[in-house]
Amino acid sequence: MTQLNPLNTLGLKQALQAIENHECTAPEIIAACYDRIEAREPEVGAWQYNLTREQYLQLYCSNQAFYEQSPLKGLPVGIKDIIDTADMPTEMGSPIHEGRQPVDDASCVALIRQAGGIVLGKTVTTEFAYFKPGKTANPRDLSRTPGGSSSGSAAAVADAMVPVSLGSQTAASVIRPAAYCGAVGYVGTRGTFSLRGVQPLAQSLDSLGLMARRVEDVALMRALLLRDSNPLEAAQMTRPKRVLLALGERIGETDSAMQEALAGLVQRMQEQGVEVVELGQGVRLDEMVAHHQSIMSYEVARNLAIESANPELLSEPLSELIENGLNLSREAYLRSLAIADATAESLWQPHQDADVILAPAAPGVAPEGHGKTGAPHMSRPWQAMGLPVVNVPGLEDEQGLPLGVQLIGRRQSDDTLLGYAGWLEKLMGSAA
Amino acid sequence: MTQLNPLNTLGLKQALQAIENHECTAPEIIAACYDRIEAREPEVGAWQYNLTREQYLQLYCSNQAFYEQSPLKGLPVGIKDIIDTADMPTEMGSPIHEGRQPVDDASCVALIRQAGGIVLGKTVTTEFAYFKPGKTANPRDLSRTPGGSSSGSAAAVADAMVPVSLGSQTAASVIRPAAYCGAVGYVGTRGTFSLRGVQPLAQSLDSLGLMARRVEDVALMRALLLRDSNPLEAAQMTRPKRVLLALGERIGETDSAMQEALAGLVQRMQEQGVEVVELGQGVRLDEMVAHHQSIMSYEVARNLAIESANPELLSEPLSELIENGLNLSREAYLRSLAIADATAESLWQPHQDADVILAPAAPGVAPEGHGKTGAPHMSRPWQAMGLPVVNVPGLEDEQGLPLGVQLIGRRQSDDTLLGYAGWLEKLMGSAA
Repeated sequence: MTQLNPLNTLGLKQALQAIENHECTAPEIIAACYDRIEAREPEVGAWQYNLTREQYLQLYCSNQAFYEQSPLKGLPVGIKDIIDTADMPTEMGSPIHEGRQPVDDASCVALIRQAGGIVLGKTVTTEFAYFKPGKTANPRDLSRTPGGSSSGSAAAVADAMVPVSLGSQTAASVIRPAAYCGAVGYVGTRGTFSLRGVQPLAQSLDSLGLMARRVEDVALMRALLLRDSNPLEAAQMTRPKRVLLALGERIGETDSAMQEALAGLVQRMQEQGVEVVELGQGVRLDEMVAHHQSIMSYEVARNLAIESANPELLSEPLSELIENGLNLSREAYLRSLAIADATAESLWQPHQDADVILAPAAPGVAPEGHGKTGAPHMSRPWQAMGLPVVNVPGLEDEQGLPLGVQLIGRRQSDDTLLGYAGWLEKLMGSAA
Repeated sequence: MTQLNPLNTLGLKQALQAIENHECTAPEIIAACYDRIEAREPEVGAWQYNLTREQYLQLYCSNQAFYEQSPLKGLPVGIKDIIDTADMPTEMGSPIHEGRQPVDDASCVALIRQAGGIVLGKTVTTEFAYFKPGKTANPRDLSRTPGGSSSGSAAAVADAMVPVSLGSQTAASVIRPAAYCGAVGYVGTRGTFSLRGVQPLAQSLDSLGLMARRVEDVALMRALLLRDSNPLEAAQMTRPKRVLLALGERIGETDSAMQEALAGLVQRMQEQGVEVVELGQGVRLDEMVAHHQSIMSYEVARNLAIESANPELLSEPLSELIENGLNLSREAYLRSLAIADATAESLWQPHQDADVILAPAAPGVAPEGHGKTGAPHMSRPWQAMGLPVVNVPGLEDEQGLPLGVQLIGRRQSDDTLLGYAGWLEKLMGSAA
């Protein structure tokens, strides 16, 4: 990764501290981010729409006193183009919504602006946050997919164009691109954040997602979005005592690079005194993948009502998903919902005292090519259960490409989960 | 109720059958609805925005062949002004959003249009579906409140201006106005319907609501919104075997008229062979009211992010709600969520074989005056638990004002619940 100016590589919290300590100014960091974008955007293609450097600085200068006193100091944030912005189009990766200009900011966008964050631009999403890719390439190897659907949000953060971004996840749309690009990706317990203005796909699965280069930065953004009174104090690093291991083959295919890297990580965790036990054999993660697919197809077929009326403008995978959803009986859908809900409770048996689950975040490194965004099955089970998840970067294959691992927590244990993620990040040496 | 033309008083399903049987035409029914609106709207004030008769007919005639073949035949629907419409403003009862024109239809609106329903207009909502009333009066007694927040949707249906309408409920916003105006109001199990384009207040509580004059009509609309392949076959009438009675005083204040009417109804049910037992004393419905308030205030404070930035344009009750939400600890909020969730399961103890819960839908008849919309506590417990609920009209006080009772079902038992509601409606003689 060529660094034109190291200021763009600072994490959000690091940047805020550097500004606080007068080591640099917000405009200097902003300039470094724009230098990076100008150098890399033609190849990476993370942005669907973005402010020019001049527009950004004009915005900053028009209200400089406010930004200087604000928690986020006027630093840039990337917003997935499935999230409404009142000052920029929100096209959802679909020709149906070309030039679509929402009237309101999503609540998450409004809260970021109120905290002094500036929306630098809208990041590329796949078509309606489903399969059909946008223009983004993987910044770690341009010949590979960045993963989807929050492709641009992951690429922009991993490539140090912005310190943080918002994404969304219905299947694997935050965790997978974070894993492939080498970013921290966090998906909250279902229902954690306001989804007002975040275009829905499937109401039982949709979650807002946060991406950054450091765990402490997603913790900070989480606290801001929850209107926590002391957002900068979020996230304590904590070593878990007992970790449940969900091996990739329990869920679906994983490759040998991932298996070896995960085995190596488990060994390092054990050396640190962490007890690692395998997730109970009674938990059928493979079946949870199928239940997730059922829930998603049923709900997408009802949520995408406007778009169903324009079938000629939908991609084949999306038309197929809607078709599947219309053919699925309501009974089968409700059964899948009920099983997912029950499994979220029984998951921890027979190891009720376990702190967290560890699993591969993707089958391996990002696949080559840009026609597909990789397989989503490693995320489907947890997403069906509405659990909080963090992708922690740091593992790599022999070529130096990122291999993501995810930590999964109990519902509403998000703060604790981020503490474990911070510990794991340090163990893997991924936070400088 | 003065009837200018009886066609406007037909239920939706009755109207569709009359058209099918060539007893009347859709334009004749539409004309009768407009006659009614012209006669009554100056006093009732159900509409925030509506098509003129000419605009409506132009829309109908421009695509007559489609409407004639469609399930809803071009009949009119009222849409609460908290639900986005691409061709009409959506102002949410707030000066902050005066003239606000959404770019997209909500999914529920799109599905209704695709089924051949025509949006006649937007019905009056209280400010952001909370307390501050709009201009609507109770059509059964103009000196009284119609209830809120779906005030216009209840009044328009109860006054036979339209056969069906959409509302939304976060606390009591469908059940209470339906009870006060004498309409059927249905709130689905949490998560049943797509809320895309329905402006959210509190994600753990918000539900779409359906209003009509007959239970079979809300069942039909439910089936349409779920893209059921045979929507006209929805709703079977079923007598419940065992009913759990939740007396009003278990929840909060109820008046003597309601208590007497409910006692009379219970007696009639028992005469029909229904076993009526009291809800287990272990269930603290009064505490559920408080948990609902906590959940609502916490989430509203995050959802209304745009509006929080305009505090001078918010009503006092709403400002207070947001303030309460900001002062509530996340721990207290999560505890309320967890208790509501657990109670939804334990509610049926020790009567696991009971079919349904019967409770007053409001403390009594609609209060006099237009400054407030009445007390919401009779709905808060069920809404906190995400249960499906139907207000069944038919009971009246000595002056002939409506006294609503509600049936409450288990999560995802909506179809069965509507069957019981149909039976109760017949018992009370409220469906002609």
